[in-house]
Amino acid sequence: MIESSKVHKILYGGDYNPEQWPEEIWKEDMRLFKLAHIDVVTLNVFSWAALQPDEITYDFSKLDKIMEYVKENGLKVCFATSTGAHPAWMARKYPDILRVEHNGMKRKFGARHNSCPNSPTYRKYSVALAAKLAERYKDYDNIVAWHISNEYGGECYCENCEKAFRVWLHKKYGTLDELNRVWNTSFWGHTFYDWDDVVLPDMRSEEFNWDGIRTNFQGISLDYRRFNSDSILDCYKLERDAVKEYTPDIPVTTNLMGFYPSLDYQKWAKEMDFISWDSYPSFGAETENNAMAHDLMRGLKGGKPFALMEQTPSVSNWHTYCALKRPGVMRLYSYQAAAHGADTIMFFQMRRSIGACEKYHGAVIDHVGNENTRVFREITALGEELTELSDTLLGARTPAEVAVVFDWDNWWATVLSAGPSRCINYYEEIYQYYKALLNLHIPMDFVGVDDDLSGYKVVMAPMLYMCKDGYDEKIRSFVKAGGTFLTSYFSGYVEDHDLVITGGYPGRLRDILGIWVEESDAIPAGDAGMKHTFAYKDVTYPAEVLCDLSHTEGAETLATYDNDFYAGMPVLTCNTFGSGKACYVATRSNQDFYRTFLTDIMKEAGVEPLAEGSDKVEITLRENKNGSFLFLLNPTDESQEVTLKKAGTDLLGGMTYQAGEKVVLPAKAVAIVQSR
Amino acid sequence: MIESSKVHKILYGGDYNPEQWPEEIWKEDMRLFKLAHIDVVTLNVFSWAALQPDEITYDFSKLDKIMEYVKENGLKVCFATSTGAHPAWMARKYPDILRVEHNGMKRKFGARHNSCPNSPTYRKYSVALAAKLAERYKDYDNIVAWHISNEYGGECYCENCEKAFRVWLHKKYGTLDELNRVWNTSFWGHTFYDWDDVVLPDMRSEEFNWDGIRTNFQGISLDYRRFNSDSILDCYKLERDAVKEYTPDIPVTTNLMGFYPSLDYQKWAKEMDFISWDSYPSFGAETENNAMAHDLMRGLKGGKPFALMEQTPSVSNWHTYCALKRPGVMRLYSYQAAAHGADTIMFFQMRRSIGACEKYHGAVIDHVGNENTRVFREITALGEELTELSDTLLGARTPAEVAVVFDWDNWWATVLSAGPSRCINYYEEIYQYYKALLNLHIPMDFVGVDDDLSGYKVVMAPMLYMCKDGYDEKIRSFVKAGGTFLTSYFSGYVEDHDLVITGGYPGRLRDILGIWVEESDAIPAGDAGMKHTFAYKDVTYPAEVLCDLSHTEGAETLATYDNDFYAGMPVLTCNTFGSGKACYVATRSNQDFYRTFLTDIMKEAGVEPLAEGSDKVEITLRENKNGSFLFLLNPTDESQEVTLKKAGTDLLGGMTYQAGEKVVLPAKAVAIVQSR
Amino acid sequence: MIESSKVHKILYGGDYNPEQWPEEIWKEDMRLFKLAHIDVVTLNVFSWAALQPDEITYDFSKLDKIMEYVKENGLKVCFATSTGAHPAWMARKYPDILRVEHNGMKRKFGARHNSCPNSPTYRKYSVALAAKLAERYKDYDNIVAWHISNEYGGECYCENCEKAFRVWLHKKYGTLDELNRVWNTSFWGHTFYDWDDVVLPDMRSEEFNWDGIRTNFQGISLDYRRFNSDSILDCYKLERDAVKEYTPDIPVTTNLMGFYPSLDYQKWAKEMDFISWDSYPSFGAETENNAMAHDLMRGLKGGKPFALMEQTPSVSNWHTYCALKRPGVMRLYSYQAAAHGADTIMFFQMRRSIGACEKYHGAVIDHVGNENTRVFREITALGEELTELSDTLLGARTPAEVAVVFDWDNWWATVLSAGPSRCINYYEEIYQYYKALLNLHIPMDFVGVDDDLSGYKVVMAPMLYMCKDGYDEKIRSFVKAGGTFLTSYFSGYVEDHDLVITGGYPGRLRDILGIWVEESDAIPAGDAGMKHTFAYKDVTYPAEVLCDLSHTEGAETLATYDNDFYAGMPVLTCNTFGSGKACYVATRSNQDFYRTFLTDIMKEAGVEPLAEGSDKVEITLRENKNGSFLFLLNPTDESQEVTLKKAGTDLLGGMTYQAGEKVVLPAKAVAIVQSR
Repeated sequence: MIESSKVHKILYGGDYNPEQWPEEIWKEDMRLFKLAHIDVVTLNVFSWAALQPDEITYDFSKLDKIMEYVKENGLKVCFATSTGAHPAWMARKYPDILRVEHNGMKRKFGARHNSCPNSPTYRKYSVALAAKLAERYKDYDNIVAWHISNEYGGECYCENCEKAFRVWLHKKYGTLDELNRVWNTSFWGHTFYDWDDVVLPDMRSEEFNWDGIRTNFQGISLDYRRFNSDSILDCYKLERDAVKEYTPDIPVTTNLMGFYPSLDYQKWAKEMDFISWDSYPSFGAETENNAMAHDLMRGLKGGKPFALMEQTPSVSNWHTYCALKRPGVMRLYSYQAAAHGADTIMFFQMRRSIGACEKYHGAVIDHVGNENTRVFREITALGEELTELSDTLLGARTPAEVAVVFDWDNWWATVLSAGPSRCINYYEEIYQYYKALLNLHIPMDFVGVDDDLSGYKVVMAPMLYMCKDGYDEKIRSFVKAGGTFLTSYFSGYVEDHDLVITGGYPGRLRDILGIWVEESDAIPAGDAGMKHTFAYKDVTYPAEVLCDLSHTEGAETLATYDNDFYAGMPVLTCNTFGSGKACYVATRSNQDFYRTFLTDIMKEAGVEPLAEGSDKVEITLRENKNGSFLFLLNPTDESQEVTLKKAGTDLLGGMTYQAGEKVVLPAKAVAIVQSR
Repeated sequence: MIESSKVHKILYGGDYNPEQWPEEIWKEDMRLFKLAHIDVVTLNVFSWAALQPDEITYDFSKLDKIMEYVKENGLKVCFATSTGAHPAWMARKYPDILRVEHNGMKRKFGARHNSCPNSPTYRKYSVALAAKLAERYKDYDNIVAWHISNEYGGECYCENCEKAFRVWLHKKYGTLDELNRVWNTSFWGHTFYDWDDVVLPDMRSEEFNWDGIRTNFQGISLDYRRFNSDSILDCYKLERDAVKEYTPDIPVTTNLMGFYPSLDYQKWAKEMDFISWDSYPSFGAETENNAMAHDLMRGLKGGKPFALMEQTPSVSNWHTYCALKRPGVMRLYSYQAAAHGADTIMFFQMRRSIGACEKYHGAVIDHVGNENTRVFREITALGEELTELSDTLLGARTPAEVAVVFDWDNWWATVLSAGPSRCINYYEEIYQYYKALLNLHIPMDFVGVDDDLSGYKVVMAPMLYMCKDGYDEKIRSFVKAGGTFLTSYFSGYVEDHDLVITGGYPGRLRDILGIWVEESDAIPAGDAGMKHTFAYKDVTYPAEVLCDLSHTEGAETLATYDNDFYAGMPVLTCNTFGSGKACYVATRSNQDFYRTFLTDIMKEAGVEPLAEGSDKVEITLRENKNGSFLFLLNPTDESQEVTLKKAGTDLLGGMTYQAGEKVVLPAKAVAIVQSR
Repeated sequence: MIESSKVHKILYGGDYNPEQWPEEIWKEDMRLFKLAHIDVVTLNVFSWAALQPDEITYDFSKLDKIMEYVKENGLKVCFATSTGAHPAWMARKYPDILRVEHNGMKRKFGARHNSCPNSPTYRKYSVALAAKLAERYKDYDNIVAWHISNEYGGECYCENCEKAFRVWLHKKYGTLDELNRVWNTSFWGHTFYDWDDVVLPDMRSEEFNWDGIRTNFQGISLDYRRFNSDSILDCYKLERDAVKEYTPDIPVTTNLMGFYPSLDYQKWAKEMDFISWDSYPSFGAETENNAMAHDLMRGLKGGKPFALMEQTPSVSNWHTYCALKRPGVMRLYSYQAAAHGADTIMFFQMRRSIGACEKYHGAVIDHVGNENTRVFREITALGEELTELSDTLLGARTPAEVAVVFDWDNWWATVLSAGPSRCINYYEEIYQYYKALLNLHIPMDFVGVDDDLSGYKVVMAPMLYMCKDGYDEKIRSFVKAGGTFLTSYFSGYVEDHDLVITGGYPGRLRDILGIWVEESDAIPAGDAGMKHTFAYKDVTYPAEVLCDLSHTEGAETLATYDNDFYAGMPVLTCNTFGSGKACYVATRSNQDFYRTFLTDIMKEAGVEPLAEGSDKVEITLRENKNGSFLFLLNPTDESQEVTLKKAGTDLLGGMTYQAGEKVVLPAKAVAIVQSR
């Protein structure tokens, strides 16, 4: 959310590139923006080459014009620093800005997100540009936010990065002895006797491709990922500091990308004034995936509203099949963002470019160039609604009694693990629990391992493979104090450096869970000859991916395996620990199971659903001084019903409902029921 | 066709490599060639290393012997210049002749087609060799054609090519401003301020692999393809000019490869005296694919007869499964070439080599080394037939009232497009219409965008995505004058540089077609949940790949979608325009539809089929001063029937037929019915 | 088998890495080893970095301690030289030790098996280390074997290898004329005029990836494989000679890997005192695959007992799905090794490491660190059995009347062949015949082409594509003398350099087999439309992969094709030749066929099965001065029965059986019936 004294409604707009068009088109743009109730534009995302034609020259003349023009036309500006793609001359003159790929291939000029984060040239000139922009435009009071660079990401394996990696390691570990210890280099005789012995883990050294990228040394590969995320974060921080010098009051963000594996957004969020992100769900993907990404983004800053920085109004251009967003779907996705905490709704892009790879990406203004399109009409209708909503929803928070732990280090560690199965998938595991919660209409927060747990009744940390130093103690305290903790197979194995906690799995969680996991059996995917099951409350469910062979050490067994030599061993346990309890799901099952089991868990923990009714309706709650807002979204193609617990009025349709009354939601419909 | 005063029958022979064998084998070769009625051999295809053992020495002694020997034995010669593979010493001494791959990998010596087209060394020594050959052998009156190099193709991404690309661009665009305009470099801040900023589009810069090769900048990638085709063409032209100096009257060709994506053969054909090509249909491929390639090749030089330079008599060696050509199939394919315009039938290869990768490729003389093989017997039988046909068919043309537009630039642009679907496939789209025509027994010509349309009744240009400057006007005139024009979805979007024509699709074709395409929906392949259909004359057909959402602007709607939110929108339209009409097929359908629809289109346009009867029989017509020749080919394994319109005599079987009489064609049978 | 005066029972132990653990753990290790009856450990596999911290320093202090400690604890030592992975400092200082990959990518430090075999640095320092170890520890009388390096393998394409390749070629071929002849370089004008023209065959030169790696020049690629195997073998020999200088009486081995394609183990075996190998069957793989690998390993040294150097007690870490070895399976696999000739049973690894890529690989001592695991209990039980078996089985040989030819050169040549089918698979072809024999309970030996055939009644050489100079004569003599020879399609095509033997396939085997193969038809895999069959003794069997079209020249036709244009042509022939006969199977069929046909062949040749009963039980025979030992293994999950021919006593269960009595084997059970 672009939190600012200048903002009095849900901002509505998108990426605008007038520099790609002759000025006579700008006027038409303004006419169309007004028609569609657009009030904010992201400017200057890819103008570095235009602003700095050579090493010593800066030319802001066109940007001056654009800034004046949009200001005159009453538009707010989300102001980008243009450093998402470096100029061609810079690549020619200073090849250190060019990245090296995972296979050692040195890049040439081209593409975007193309700068080495440890390039001295990149750092010098990106910061210089950000500073110049801030200095020059600091007095534009319609600038509502800084948009640093664009969709940061990727990796680089160049020599500069290698040298920086050694410095980063030296700073982190102090001595080679400690480095050798945490990386367990006595294995395969990898002992380093000099910092310069360390090389980056890539296809030339420790990583290789064998049904996906693998590594010989998890510790090295894990630290590289941390280092790379930090390196790019440093680039962000340098630009942020540069603009803050001139405009300390303009909030700063950069557009994130949901569950993006390369960057530890939880670390990044600490450096951002507010979260913004770009949402591009694939056609046909379950809407719960997108909901989960919204919740992750909201959780990065403890529930503070965020901005939907980009979404397509109609199609994307890069999918295998670029299917159209059906009528109503753009609106549905826009309100889904709001339902999960967004206070800003923006598009990529305002006007379709005529050349290069995004010319068939959807836009507010299509190639036909006028307002007479289905897409424009839908955008206009939503613009009207948002205008009517005014500031009602601004700043609303989403209360939750359930927390789900998500941790980037753990994600990396699970992906990098050699064994027990290539089907180990942290995202999928989290998603199974998330989806069940959402369909049960139970609100949740994503938390990182640094976040406080004390406000929650239930904490779920499926596949907490890496239980970092001290985190077990945080869980221990939480459970002792009466909380309900839940985790699943492949948890508690390692500490922060992916070194195994010896003495029996799940390591530091063993006493809390009251179990010992002796072995784990990988279940081949799709192998008809090896169907494993278990029964919970007389219903049989599948056991997939991994089956732990465990022994209870105080925990109660709720279900056991039906098959194989481990038939009868526990698959589902709960351990009373202090005033709380700790449950363990020793395998992957299906949604039927997760919904049943979580229903029981929540009931016992005293967590209630937001409403009763169709599990296909997405329901969330937000609250601010104007009251509480129950969002009801129907992503299906059929009508759905939900029974309200409280009376209220639909902000969109105007209907008023009594407590206990049914809301009927037609296909793709949205309701925001305000109660006071 | 090797058009020469020296040629009095369909030439029959193939690639002959006596230099791989001791001389005592040559005598046996001659005996076997005579048995098989072989009268032409392609010599000297891969002898560069033998002819030029080092930088200053040339040694023609063995070639002298070979040339004398084949002349004594009454054989004509298709004389290759040997530059299809450079010598090893040259690669060691001058690495500039070695190509760089798409990923930046510099090649070493090996393989063939291995020379960088912009290598100064390659150009210098390839031309020198061609000149020396021409000078030395110019008086051999049995040389019927020059065969420059061999199967030109591939790409190079070396520094020399990069520099040459900049020169090529400078020459084409004059200024950097114009370059920046046509490549739309304001997108992603790619503006070039110096010609040296330009780098080749490859994996290191703008291209990447994501369900196939993609590019960030269509304009750059498109121009690279043009440049690369031109670069290789320059190599061809340099050799051609060198031999023409000594032998101005010997026609010059190089062996093409049908629908070969890397080279713009329409541009190449202008520099060739006659077209020759190598045909290697896969086992199990529809014979219409091969027919289409023959027609494309014939169309390159306005219908002039061409040479089938290579085909295998039995098996190829590189397919995944090298299945045998069944009995009769080699003969069938040979006559298929003739049916579509070939006056020369040649094989790769005359004698199977004993080592390296083509030793299991079929040959006239197998490893067993004698005439007692099925394959040799079939070759001999065909040789006898061709001898009996004498000069009857020579020079015959194939009259047609239907033209199908094929354009290499359009092919490249569609392949490179980011969106709307990776199933966009120009070849496949053309093939659907082509196959329907062929099965309807309607003759056609392939035309390029430079070719005249005035002689045709119907012009079909499916998926004319790139409608080049002025080409709309050519179509406009054609239709106004009474012609029937037909195109399909994904047409008219861009001009020559892949820049979108704004104002509404299909751009410059909008007035001609009388429609506006507002959106296009990509249909996921094989998605059972998303079957789209439409009905034409009460029969339901599938709508696949892409469904345009369009509005008529004067055109008549012939069919509408059955499904989805665009049910009722037009899928098939025809617009009366001037004295003609312009039809549009807004989606991909199936053969049943194309056959039905084209039957109606042709009937209305007054285009008649060559004969009635089985749609599985391939029927073509050729005409010369000896009369008209109706080719009937039955590629199936069952007997088929065709009813003749005119009386005539089968040149092969000797049977005489009356008009209206049925020809019965057994499996794999061929008839050539001559009428006068 | 570790044959030594120091060995009096089947050695039992595995890889032990105490250097990865604090010394206080060592004591616990010893306690647990004793519990489990462990008596041998492989030490020092990956300690190079520890032993040689820089170029001039060697530090054996920790190894001294370890050696003392294990000696004190009564353990024997399999002593590794630690050269399987070079130290990081060496890679930094001497990049020549780093390999270059197939695509030209130069490696950096990382992984293992990472040294260029032609690196002067590697050779210098690996030999130096081996010598130092031998000198220092030569008086330890508990060293039972040298374990040189570790799992040698892989390829290198660096400049040093390229230069060494030229030297190797020069030595082998003497002249460039001969090199050009054997590589058939007149093809594609590849003639070499200087040894330095030769480059390594890789992605940069002659090889490419097209449904797998292919090559343009089979001769070059074949010689590269020979050269690479020899280069690595040279490394082994240098180390072996270094240790032999100090410890001439300690047998030397290196751990092989079964059917490992990169190294010609038949050539290697000549340099090894005994064979040892690492066996890691995939979960779900047929146990016959592993049995075949054991037999191949035993065959390398003419039947001499070998060592199972590594197997996992429970799981591996690198499989896609690391399923657990079920209860009894580790024991079953251990006895399978013994059944096929092993006198040593060892594990990787003794204690699970806590970091890096093998931390989830199974171990005797798991991360829990104690004896209370299923796996440890199974290991202990086996340890007890092996202790009880004492020296009873030591040195026992496996008599056989059937030989199966396996030849690495032939393997390489078939893999590299361009045509006739990518389904040509030498391993699979051999496996079909092997599996049928094993299931028929007929013992066999693998022989190489240098091995004597005279002791066998039947010699089988399926897919003997490369019939080397003189090998036809060996077969000819064998058959003339009354032997039965059997081969299959794609045999006899080429000589040692992959040059075709002209005059008709199967070349030099034509007279022996009494057939001429005119053509071969590749059968597309899984093509329902092309099912080929033949009938043998009234039962119909499939004909797959390749169907030869052959003519008998004296042979008797036993079966003919049912389909296609070659229906009626022979598919199964036997030729009486001298006092013996030679049979030919012209296609690939299924196990039903192979079992039926081999039953007939064996009956006629007078070869008898070891026992009657379930074909699912694996049965082998070993003999020494203590009697004969019939091994019976039941890998299935059901009980199986076998009828004994001789009376005897089960060494494991203690049961005594009469001749003709049934042995009932429960699931996973093993019996060793001793008869005298």
